[in-house]
Amino acid sequence: MKSVAVLTSGGDAPGMNAAIRSVVRCGITKGWSMYGVTNGFAGLIVDNIRPIGTRDVGGILQKGGTILGSARSEEFFTEDGQRKAIRNLRRMGIDALVVIGGNGSQTGNYELHKLGFPVTGIPSTIDNDICGTEMAIGVDTAMNIALEAIDRLKVTASSHQRAFLIEVMGRNCGYIALMSGIAGGAEFIVIPEIEISPEEVAESLQLAYEHGKAHAIIVVAEGAKYNADALIAYFQKHEERWGFKIRATILGHVQRGGAPGAFDRILASRFGNGAVEAIAREEYGVLVGLNNGAVTTTPLEAIIGKTKTISTEMVELARLLD
Amino acid sequence: MKSVAVLTSGGDAPGMNAAIRSVVRCGITKGWSMYGVTNGFAGLIVDNIRPIGTRDVGGILQKGGTILGSARSEEFFTEDGQRKAIRNLRRMGIDALVVIGGNGSQTGNYELHKLGFPVTGIPSTIDNDICGTEMAIGVDTAMNIALEAIDRLKVTASSHQRAFLIEVMGRNCGYIALMSGIAGGAEFIVIPEIEISPEEVAESLQLAYEHGKAHAIIVVAEGAKYNADALIAYFQKHEERWGFKIRATILGHVQRGGAPGAFDRILASRFGNGAVEAIAREEYGVLVGLNNGAVTTTPLEAIIGKTKTISTEMVELARLLD
Amino acid sequence: MKSVAVLTSGGDAPGMNAAIRSVVRCGITKGWSMYGVTNGFAGLIVDNIRPIGTRDVGGILQKGGTILGSARSEEFFTEDGQRKAIRNLRRMGIDALVVIGGNGSQTGNYELHKLGFPVTGIPSTIDNDICGTEMAIGVDTAMNIALEAIDRLKVTASSHQRAFLIEVMGRNCGYIALMSGIAGGAEFIVIPEIEISPEEVAESLQLAYEHGKAHAIIVVAEGAKYNADALIAYFQKHEERWGFKIRATILGHVQRGGAPGAFDRILASRFGNGAVEAIAREEYGVLVGLNNGAVTTTPLEAIIGKTKTISTEMVELARLLD
Amino acid sequence: MKSVAVLTSGGDAPGMNAAIRSVVRCGITKGWSMYGVTNGFAGLIVDNIRPIGTRDVGGILQKGGTILGSARSEEFFTEDGQRKAIRNLRRMGIDALVVIGGNGSQTGNYELHKLGFPVTGIPSTIDNDICGTEMAIGVDTAMNIALEAIDRLKVTASSHQRAFLIEVMGRNCGYIALMSGIAGGAEFIVIPEIEISPEEVAESLQLAYEHGKAHAIIVVAEGAKYNADALIAYFQKHEERWGFKIRATILGHVQRGGAPGAFDRILASRFGNGAVEAIAREEYGVLVGLNNGAVTTTPLEAIIGKTKTISTEMVELARLLD
Repeated sequence: MKSVAVLTSGGDAPGMNAAIRSVVRCGITKGWSMYGVTNGFAGLIVDNIRPIGTRDVGGILQKGGTILGSARSEEFFTEDGQRKAIRNLRRMGIDALVVIGGNGSQTGNYELHKLGFPVTGIPSTIDNDICGTEMAIGVDTAMNIALEAIDRLKVTASSHQRAFLIEVMGRNCGYIALMSGIAGGAEFIVIPEIEISPEEVAESLQLAYEHGKAHAIIVVAEGAKYNADALIAYFQKHEERWGFKIRATILGHVQRGGAPGAFDRILASRFGNGAVEAIAREEYGVLVGLNNGAVTTTPLEAIIGKTKTISTEMVELARLLD
Repeated sequence: MKSVAVLTSGGDAPGMNAAIRSVVRCGITKGWSMYGVTNGFAGLIVDNIRPIGTRDVGGILQKGGTILGSARSEEFFTEDGQRKAIRNLRRMGIDALVVIGGNGSQTGNYELHKLGFPVTGIPSTIDNDICGTEMAIGVDTAMNIALEAIDRLKVTASSHQRAFLIEVMGRNCGYIALMSGIAGGAEFIVIPEIEISPEEVAESLQLAYEHGKAHAIIVVAEGAKYNADALIAYFQKHEERWGFKIRATILGHVQRGGAPGAFDRILASRFGNGAVEAIAREEYGVLVGLNNGAVTTTPLEAIIGKTKTISTEMVELARLLD
Repeated sequence: MKSVAVLTSGGDAPGMNAAIRSVVRCGITKGWSMYGVTNGFAGLIVDNIRPIGTRDVGGILQKGGTILGSARSEEFFTEDGQRKAIRNLRRMGIDALVVIGGNGSQTGNYELHKLGFPVTGIPSTIDNDICGTEMAIGVDTAMNIALEAIDRLKVTASSHQRAFLIEVMGRNCGYIALMSGIAGGAEFIVIPEIEISPEEVAESLQLAYEHGKAHAIIVVAEGAKYNADALIAYFQKHEERWGFKIRATILGHVQRGGAPGAFDRILASRFGNGAVEAIAREEYGVLVGLNNGAVTTTPLEAIIGKTKTISTEMVELARLLD
Repeated sequence: MKSVAVLTSGGDAPGMNAAIRSVVRCGITKGWSMYGVTNGFAGLIVDNIRPIGTRDVGGILQKGGTILGSARSEEFFTEDGQRKAIRNLRRMGIDALVVIGGNGSQTGNYELHKLGFPVTGIPSTIDNDICGTEMAIGVDTAMNIALEAIDRLKVTASSHQRAFLIEVMGRNCGYIALMSGIAGGAEFIVIPEIEISPEEVAESLQLAYEHGKAHAIIVVAEGAKYNADALIAYFQKHEERWGFKIRATILGHVQRGGAPGAFDRILASRFGNGAVEAIAREEYGVLVGLNNGAVTTTPLEAIIGKTKTISTEMVELARLLD
């Protein structure tokens, strides 16, 4: 019989609610008392911790965002803030905390662990830049929203001597750009992990036209050196040289919204169960993850501060299929 | 027994293919010979006019873009070019031409009419800025794509003290912005037809937060004086004063792509039939349109150069429901 | 200064929530007190009437279903039940009632009107079988869900000598079947308003194959004499004669769910405002509706018990474009 | 330098076109001559084998169905037919064949292998019932279409004392039903792998209502003993005992159509490359697959006739989260 609290932290990702629901229901099945923390770590500090039951998490599986809210907390970045959070958790009789969030959130989680509070992490970020899992919650849905936009651009791009550029999210990680670019059949994909020059982009578009392609789509990760702003500026300056105009779409937060797809709901459900099982066997300070198709746990210390590398198989595939 | 050619011109709009299909099939049902012109008016000049049959327009009803293509033609803007176009049409034995397109395209169409060639127009533009019809082909689909993006922004906007801005298409017309803003429950809608100051936008967002709204969405028409670029610049400059950051989505051509919805397919099918019926009764120089629920015709001379006004009922509704 | 209650009744339709929101917010803008009734007429009888404010209807615009609920009430079909409903409304000080619903619901509404209680109706039913309006709330969304299914069937139907049948909703009205059939390019559309024999369906499919069509889609209204069950039975019995198998999809209530599209949200918003304006001018016993593009009112007595006829223009169009 | 032919066989699955494109483009990158076979094994017998180039597979990545077509061939099930197929392949100078299809198709493929022709298989079936791979092409997309329908049912189911039943595809495999049921939060999932009685279903629904659930959704695999027909018959017979009506949706082939999602396009792209690489190293008689996140090959003889078992982790999860 345990008391377990769950919170969501950092940028929201489709599937966070499915993870909350799974943690709560799997915990209740074990006979535990479950608690929800409002507004992430900030909620720990102001003692916003309340019991949460089976029906409270009904009807949220299919919803984007997070019913628990998420907020940034300056205070939590200090040790004083962290200790205050732990005091509040202990006063409520909480035995363990589950943190659903990305890199920054798991770093905060790790701080609590180092201060001796039992924690588990569930990776959730559309950027897929967190180590210890092949896929984080939200990635698949965000990738499909980006892909839908690319598909639509392709339809309209087929008539004009024009290049279309679409900037997608991912911070310093090119995962969404690379994968949606492959899935969308982009002519060029610009990611932070691989340095390119704007001339290479331009030459590639020119080649596409020479090969009789009816459209030219460039997918750009927001974190790339040559992101949308930089490439638009380049093509404006060199319009005469290359002879085509760039029309841009900036998807922005549209990628975070929307209903999670089947993959994210199932992944979140598995991760929620995985976190509860880890707590049941009192395995703390770990991140639940998906590795080789199975739900695993990895010590937080092994993943904090690490950078996920981009798959060379996928980079190769992008080149092959262009 | 007539020979009739059809072309698409200007920016593509979802439903253009449904209109082509309808013109071709309704014409063939009358026993006519039907012709398709490739790449709009440019195709008339280079004599790109070919017979088109029932099966050629099979499987295109649900597709965005235009199978006939569309291109700009400098030459067609000269009287020489127009006369060349008419010579080519006459040499092929074409009795009448159907032009599917927006304001610019119908202006070109009207030039042919003034030079004595029998023409009919079908209004097609996502901007809904063409007079003589309440709705042009493509508007409903583009509006729904904008709405889907607004819905997704709302989901993610619900957790942060942040304003989200989304710029939608429409050239100098605020229709898509106004209608998708009402349908999406936007806190503020910026359209070219109504002058506002960035201070008004900022005050409105502040009010929304004070009233306990969980999100603040601003929908901006690309043609407004304070479009995305201008508003972002304003809020960056005055961040301290207002205290919130603006995150922007620029939808761009994504709104033109995608499959046409039911409304656009049916409207296009009705317009195609309407154009064929007008030709059958040798009523030329007109634009087919939707007025008071019925398919009508309006002389091109009555609509060329006119500006459509925005509905005051809708502007009122936006204020009421905010 | 008035007190106005709103309820939803009958089958749910996408856009009902948008109508509730519009009634509530437009009423509050006038300085009125607004009330929500839970579970339709049943809620009137058990006195389930509560104040409803601006924020209560926040975040519901984009949601299907109805936040007020809907339920059948045997008791309300009796005059005793109706008088009890009116007593409860009067005890709460309610001056007028807005009923959002279809034919059956507006008939109930009319009973209250005849007993002297001031009422207004807003037409809402995916079947589009209610007189006094060209379009009811929910029709456009339901039609697009049916269309999406037809589009998907077409993709898979393109390889086999097989006919696909899809049964859509509409009770005794063929509107959804006819319109989604036209928009989807169906080979045959079966509606209650037009009698056909299964032989005609079979011959039409055979003709489609002879003409080289890659697929054969039959759209059937649930209320047709030869609905899915009847046609499947026929083709099973006569498989040898016609040589093709029928594969069936029964869409069912899937058509009622999902988020309302732009058209339904705007229509519902306009109808809500129209109902409030009718009450403001104390015009009671009417149904708000859309006619010739404008929001109108029609006396309930003029529409109760009437049957809406199917558009001959559309029936013609279906034949022309097949 | 090799000559390689590719065909699609059996039921179509979203992503088949992406696989064709990948096989063709990866082969051409290696300098090989690529051939496309029309209408599956039937095309081999009638010698419907033609060169296929990079541009022939342009614009198909996002399309459901198969541009190569698929058909059943009685003749191919005989050794004579198979030898004829091999003669035709050899006469065209084909060195290896890639077969994209499900269990039945790979069985046919294995026959060619046993007769000495070099083959590779790519698993493609929405049923996910083929061994040697965790996921077949088409499963993820079909699962998401089923999920979308379940989500919509949930919206409309929230007001009535009614149970909604949805029958999904999968032949004798419960994968789609189980996964879409978990992702959709179904109250009961009926799959062929686990025997249940209709009483269990009824009791489960009753329990859901007693627990205050607003809806009751049953997801049923078409191959279960108690499929839609059987359950509807049961509940009609025992309506008085249980007190609720069942409303049914039969999704049917709608699940096969539609555009493939990101997962299926990427999986298909990887499998296409995997097949080409297997041929490059002259590893024949194998099925390309996804195992532990990596593209693998498994001898066809190890998977033919085997039955894939359902994941116990998922069955457990369905129970936990109900």
